[in-house]
Amino acid sequence: MKYEFLKQEINDWLNGYFANKGTYEKIVFEAMSYSLNNTGKRIRPILMLLTYGMYKENYKDIMPFACALEMIHTYSLIHDDLPCMDNDDLRRGKPTNHKVYGEAVATLAGDALLNEAFNVMLKECLCGDISKIKATYIISKSASAYGMIGGQIVDILSEGKAISEDELRFMHKKKTGELIKAALLAGAVLAEASDYDIKLIEQFGENLGLAFQIKDDILDVIGNSDKLGKKTNSDLINKKVTFVSLYGLEKCKLMLDSINDECLEILKRLRKDTNELEKITVFLFNRDF
Amino acid sequence: MKYEFLKQEINDWLNGYFANKGTYEKIVFEAMSYSLNNTGKRIRPILMLLTYGMYKENYKDIMPFACALEMIHTYSLIHDDLPCMDNDDLRRGKPTNHKVYGEAVATLAGDALLNEAFNVMLKECLCGDISKIKATYIISKSASAYGMIGGQIVDILSEGKAISEDELRFMHKKKTGELIKAALLAGAVLAEASDYDIKLIEQFGENLGLAFQIKDDILDVIGNSDKLGKKTNSDLINKKVTFVSLYGLEKCKLMLDSINDECLEILKRLRKDTNELEKITVFLFNRDF
Repeated sequence: MKYEFLKQEINDWLNGYFANKGTYEKIVFEAMSYSLNNTGKRIRPILMLLTYGMYKENYKDIMPFACALEMIHTYSLIHDDLPCMDNDDLRRGKPTNHKVYGEAVATLAGDALLNEAFNVMLKECLCGDISKIKATYIISKSASAYGMIGGQIVDILSEGKAISEDELRFMHKKKTGELIKAALLAGAVLAEASDYDIKLIEQFGENLGLAFQIKDDILDVIGNSDKLGKKTNSDLINKKVTFVSLYGLEKCKLMLDSINDECLEILKRLRKDTNELEKITVFLFNRDF
Repeated sequence: MKYEFLKQEINDWLNGYFANKGTYEKIVFEAMSYSLNNTGKRIRPILMLLTYGMYKENYKDIMPFACALEMIHTYSLIHDDLPCMDNDDLRRGKPTNHKVYGEAVATLAGDALLNEAFNVMLKECLCGDISKIKATYIISKSASAYGMIGGQIVDILSEGKAISEDELRFMHKKKTGELIKAALLAGAVLAEASDYDIKLIEQFGENLGLAFQIKDDILDVIGNSDKLGKKTNSDLINKKVTFVSLYGLEKCKLMLDSINDECLEILKRLRKDTNELEKITVFLFNRDF
């Protein structure tokens, strides 16, 4: 299973998902679909499928969980872009949801995507499979105030304020790291991996999540806005403390190298075919978008 | 089990729920708690507990589901009150969430309450009990774009526009009716009621939800703003089509009487001790807040 192949599978699954839904409320499905079907990297669902794929072959069985996670990620972006939050006009090279549908519909479309993720996962849970229920719970917790939302709150409140290294790490661990870790953990739990493996995958996920955010901070400074599909230097403009503002570019690059090594080291200890997870790790550390 | 007793139990459960939660993100828990712990009628959780109580005695077993539903209801109010939605300053006699915490925190507190409801219910589902998973799914669907959010979208988009009776009914059935119906259905499913009973309870729920909204529309015109804890005539000010604007006050009151009779008739057919459900039905039809 290759990255590009899985990405296409995910896009296909999501693409038709809201087709022909709704009557009077049709616009909410259009707005949900608009943000869900874009040029996103699909990192989280791919990570889940690749983790699952180390143990089992029938990756299609867990597509609903992978795509539900992407719905949660997408809702968080829609709300993040709102005028009362980051006030962004562009996301992945397209006008943000509220720029197209207005703030009210965008707010509700975000709500609805979060809720739809649970519709999708719970439908799968009706069979009573404990590993599916566990995976749904892991994803739910990771997105909640104990996870992603906790990080978003700190992000919003820290604008224009000096925050400590500890607070910055808390923010990034939660805001970006939690969903990435949940993707890996849910994949492992769905595949009924051993507790030993799950522990390692959790460590890998924590490192990968941190690296993902450091890379984001770096790209915001040195990235190409066309490739990124959004404005660069937004952290500087919004007066946000980032890894780059705290440590400088060079030290951030060194940190990335060190985390990269650690990630690959952990994968080795899994004693599985971790080839594809290694490749995506290297890809994530070297991406320019 | 009496209405007031259950209301107190629910308030007690919710009151301590977010105590001492959070560090850097503490404010999101405070904001969630602010809207959750208020003078709400707790209609939805009470309906769930009373329905369950017709079949089983251990109502405490389903308190997490009842309170999760109240979290969903509360999140919908926080988002409904936002400036980009209804732009309300007052809710149940207190400043709305965004008036106290700002729009960004209020948006995230709403998101977090919806998400927390799933944390709560999924934790209960980890035991693998199918009726709990079914109840969680029922609640999830009822709150989603296929349910409540679908109604909210139509509500927002219909402001200042003439809409048909069909669209008005669609809106109210979804916006208010779905969660009320889900409260009753989840209670019945959790109690493992028969399919025959569940069908009747569903009919009862649909009628009660419709009546609840007609009553809301009436109170917005003739209610006392002090008792209601919010401004009256908001529908008129926001140029919204309501049952009252469509049919006039007198016809609305007749409609209520007729639905009331139908509700009580359905309850009779259940052949259970429906005394408490009858009382709350009469209470809801006659409430002045």
